[in-house]
Amino acid sequence: MERAEVPDIVIGRLPIYLRALTHLLETDQEFTSSQELGRILGIGSAQIRKDLSHFGEFGKQGTGYEVSYLRQQISKILHVDRNWSVALVGFGDLGQAIAHYGDFSSKGFCIEAIFDADPDKVGQNVDGTVIQDAKNLAEVISKYKIKMAIIAVPALAAQNVANELIEAGIRAILNYAPITLNVPERIRVEYIDPVMHLQTMTYYLA
Amino acid sequence: MERAEVPDIVIGRLPIYLRALTHLLETDQEFTSSQELGRILGIGSAQIRKDLSHFGEFGKQGTGYEVSYLRQQISKILHVDRNWSVALVGFGDLGQAIAHYGDFSSKGFCIEAIFDADPDKVGQNVDGTVIQDAKNLAEVISKYKIKMAIIAVPALAAQNVANELIEAGIRAILNYAPITLNVPERIRVEYIDPVMHLQTMTYYLA
Repeated sequence: MERAEVPDIVIGRLPIYLRALTHLLETDQEFTSSQELGRILGIGSAQIRKDLSHFGEFGKQGTGYEVSYLRQQISKILHVDRNWSVALVGFGDLGQAIAHYGDFSSKGFCIEAIFDADPDKVGQNVDGTVIQDAKNLAEVISKYKIKMAIIAVPALAAQNVANELIEAGIRAILNYAPITLNVPERIRVEYIDPVMHLQTMTYYLA
Repeated sequence: MERAEVPDIVIGRLPIYLRALTHLLETDQEFTSSQELGRILGIGSAQIRKDLSHFGEFGKQGTGYEVSYLRQQISKILHVDRNWSVALVGFGDLGQAIAHYGDFSSKGFCIEAIFDADPDKVGQNVDGTVIQDAKNLAEVISKYKIKMAIIAVPALAAQNVANELIEAGIRAILNYAPITLNVPERIRVEYIDPVMHLQTMTYYLA
């Protein structure tokens, strides 16, 4: 099936399914259904069936989905059945929390390079990865052919960092800086913006 | 207009508009249009007009939207034209990054209480807020009538913390722990899960 046919919003839900399936697998559950997944995730079961139907037939009438098989298939579709090298730019409070966050490596995202502009931080060893001077960012990223990067620098520095990353060959950016990045259309950007999440919830309070 | 009529996905886009308008205001721009906002945000201009039309008429044929007025109106709709007290549970690497993240307080989200279970951390002063024993969570949250909380504890502890928070009166949770929380329908939960964002992007790489 052509990848262009699948809407971004469907792709965005696959990792959510993956997480639920991983959880079921860990609790030794062999089979599940779109109804059960829907209950766990608060998503309609018809939506789940429709989303999965973009990629093939994964379930059987009567028995539903085999948990480990469906999980494996979604992993393949998302290309997370392999390891990915990730560059981290910025080693302030946030960068440190990111570098120490165990969930990245356990899910196959290995922080292979860390950059900071502060000479006091350059050279520090972080769980085996030496912090490098931000000046060498382009060189290191090209050399190791890293395709994904996490930006954890202040808002004012983020656009420049993004430009350098893209120039060096990065194709996907996870941006923690609270600004909207200007990037070419071929570059994927996702944002982590906790304030926006809080602002979404206050609508329902008060 | 009845709040129930506005889909969650529309509410979820309002903070994005708010951020773009704040940016325009900071650059002293007086007027904007759905076309310009669309270009900045990568969202269709028709979508933006339709989203805003849920709440009234904000623009004028010919001149478009007045930036400061539209920004003010969206702030009111989202209830972010006031300050909100937030409780932070967990003061590990991530909790520390959250506590020091300036963007919360500058956007009106004040971390009024910090909790941790580690006796070595309890009593520490964090920019004026003293870390409290997680045992006193319910008592403190009820006493100060805090309605929003951020969970930054390990995955295994998160569900218990969520239960206690809800019991104490919390109505909205921003969850950084990599698990899906089980909560009553009236409770709003938003998730910060960087791994899911990375997993969304790898689909388009490779």
